[in-house]
Amino acid sequence: MSKQRIVVQKYGGTSVGSAERIQEVAKRVIRHREKGDSIVVVVSAMSGETNKLVALINELNPNGSAREKDVVLSTGEQVTIGLLSLALEAKGCPAISYTGSQAGVKTDNSFSKARISNIDCSKIKADLSAGKVVVVAGFQGVDENGNITTLGRGGSDTTAVALAVALDAAECQIYTDVDGVYTTDPRMVPEASHIPKLALEEMLEMASQGSKVLQIRAVEFAYKYNMPIRVLSSFDEGDDGKSTLVTREEDIMEEVLVRGVAFNKDEALLTILGVPDQPGVAFKILGPISDANIEIDMILQNASADGSTDFTFTVHRNDYDQAKEILQATAKKFGAKNVGGDQTIAKVSIVGGGMRSHAGVATKMFEALAKENINIRMISTSEIKVAVVIDEKYLELAVRSLHESFRLDDA
Amino acid sequence: MSKQRIVVQKYGGTSVGSAERIQEVAKRVIRHREKGDSIVVVVSAMSGETNKLVALINELNPNGSAREKDVVLSTGEQVTIGLLSLALEAKGCPAISYTGSQAGVKTDNSFSKARISNIDCSKIKADLSAGKVVVVAGFQGVDENGNITTLGRGGSDTTAVALAVALDAAECQIYTDVDGVYTTDPRMVPEASHIPKLALEEMLEMASQGSKVLQIRAVEFAYKYNMPIRVLSSFDEGDDGKSTLVTREEDIMEEVLVRGVAFNKDEALLTILGVPDQPGVAFKILGPISDANIEIDMILQNASADGSTDFTFTVHRNDYDQAKEILQATAKKFGAKNVGGDQTIAKVSIVGGGMRSHAGVATKMFEALAKENINIRMISTSEIKVAVVIDEKYLELAVRSLHESFRLDDA
Repeated sequence: MSKQRIVVQKYGGTSVGSAERIQEVAKRVIRHREKGDSIVVVVSAMSGETNKLVALINELNPNGSAREKDVVLSTGEQVTIGLLSLALEAKGCPAISYTGSQAGVKTDNSFSKARISNIDCSKIKADLSAGKVVVVAGFQGVDENGNITTLGRGGSDTTAVALAVALDAAECQIYTDVDGVYTTDPRMVPEASHIPKLALEEMLEMASQGSKVLQIRAVEFAYKYNMPIRVLSSFDEGDDGKSTLVTREEDIMEEVLVRGVAFNKDEALLTILGVPDQPGVAFKILGPISDANIEIDMILQNASADGSTDFTFTVHRNDYDQAKEILQATAKKFGAKNVGGDQTIAKVSIVGGGMRSHAGVATKMFEALAKENINIRMISTSEIKVAVVIDEKYLELAVRSLHESFRLDDA
Repeated sequence: MSKQRIVVQKYGGTSVGSAERIQEVAKRVIRHREKGDSIVVVVSAMSGETNKLVALINELNPNGSAREKDVVLSTGEQVTIGLLSLALEAKGCPAISYTGSQAGVKTDNSFSKARISNIDCSKIKADLSAGKVVVVAGFQGVDENGNITTLGRGGSDTTAVALAVALDAAECQIYTDVDGVYTTDPRMVPEASHIPKLALEEMLEMASQGSKVLQIRAVEFAYKYNMPIRVLSSFDEGDDGKSTLVTREEDIMEEVLVRGVAFNKDEALLTILGVPDQPGVAFKILGPISDANIEIDMILQNASADGSTDFTFTVHRNDYDQAKEILQATAKKFGAKNVGGDQTIAKVSIVGGGMRSHAGVATKMFEALAKENINIRMISTSEIKVAVVIDEKYLELAVRSLHESFRLDDA
């Protein structure tokens, strides 16, 4: 007897947002199961539920302990797993639900942003062998002391990919409200083209550069363990809608120069001017920021002629005030000249595996932006990405002109 | 150093029905804690939440597996424990929450009506020693395979009493929306008197005869383990409001003849006529009913002169149709004459520890009912209770006249 293929399917909040939507998901799961695969379903909280719980928490104690917040927030997914299992049963499909804890999703104890350390799949495997659909609560796990943890917003994608890896699944299907990844956000550029297939590494850059379709941690996980992800819409009527397969690079036939244009408006820029240009200065400036648990994205250091240097970096806009305060304290210690900042910036990136073997992509990007008179304030590059920081007001213009310059609407 | 007194407090759904109400509960817990007791709090789901979840379940699969329903329903209490812990923290009181599973509430695997088998209190004891208030989700536990179970509606009272017993608490305080037990329901008889103290055994009869203040299973548990229960209102402003202490009989100074009048309209009556009067007939008639998991309350058998007998019993009104069907099948087997039934009945009981030593109480009850021309259809007695079944339409008249006859308004 040949071993059945295991597929992990993840349905987000809008896909399970009502009893009717849950019925639709149940039908889709059953149709897929009838094709012969063993199915594990990961679900989020019904859309709106998490926000409702957050509102209650904020009414009582917005600065309360993360452990207790996780106890409250993890209930959203728990409701969905029970309801979806009931919906599957009602249609004659044997199903069993597990909370993160019951599913053996072990995490560290960083409440509200826990990391999965390992997954004990023995129960799930036994259920699959018995012909059941297994429904697992996304976004949550349990630490070694039995405390409930959550993985942070969007953590359900991570649960799905981690489960797929642990179960050695054929692929991890992420059902959402869009039918895949586009060359850029179609709400901003209507000409954006659908991408049927791209490399995990490209997706990683797209995700970290602002594409909201997949959670970056989930893509990192998939990249690390080479787990193919397929992005599909749960709102398509049938099962033959469009999708994007995100897979290992060698499975991508054609290497494209620029795969897409990603962007985000969530960052803010901080500058410290006239810092003595000594060894260890970067650590002394950024250390206190990291100690405050603030994530730093882009970093830029200019050496100046007079033996002092300027230092610029970006943080999430929510962390701007706190980061600026810390930076001002640091500036005092150093006798630095000045601390500046700007919250009205945007980051735009072009991403493509073909950049590795083709020169001139960055130049072409800068040329396109120059033609529109858009000033570039920071540049950061990787092997398959060029990212620039510009004024927020030019964002849409920049995205449109890059999309056109690289002929992504013809893709 | 003297050991601190442990008190278990239980707050029902209306007591924690909103963020404001949860704040009030937090204040009350802190005031009590400042008196020097160690406090364990058991909470229900916020009022309305359980009904909302039940509606979702019924929309998807009303006849679905009880295991999955319990997964959904247990989230209600889980939200409350996190929120109350956050509210306590916000007021500077260290607190930690536990789901039933985390609190070590082990049950059998009768989903939706599980029985507590034992409680491992080690974690709770350590937290109390560390000066924390421990907040536990009522109504839920975990079976030996890690499945979430619920104890059935009102199960939070049972959780509270069971925890109080396991922790060897000084008393178990049940906060609700009334300030204690009354001689009868004050909504029916405005002259009903507040009872400051009554025996657990009396409460057991009151509860099983229909008084809604405490869940019968909780009282059974308290009776079995001699745990004093205090019923209080969480809507009283201060802490010096009225309460009812339900305690072991020897702690009750004055033994009262009739403590109160209880009643319920939840039952229906079934009759099978002309059954051959042979040994084992009761078992043969009631066995199939019990096998269908239908609880039987009162049972009455009349021997008739012709060697056949009539058999009458009561079941919950919800089970009436199913029980009647089973009884009709039984009647066929026996060649019994007839199966009858009535859903418009009510049960009225008088309860009092003093009945043991005083004759004539039942007679006085029958006299009072006769005076009002109320026909008695069934009678059942225990050492401290007399219960009668009457037509539902006479219920209010019967309760009022008994309340007056036994001078309970003077109590």
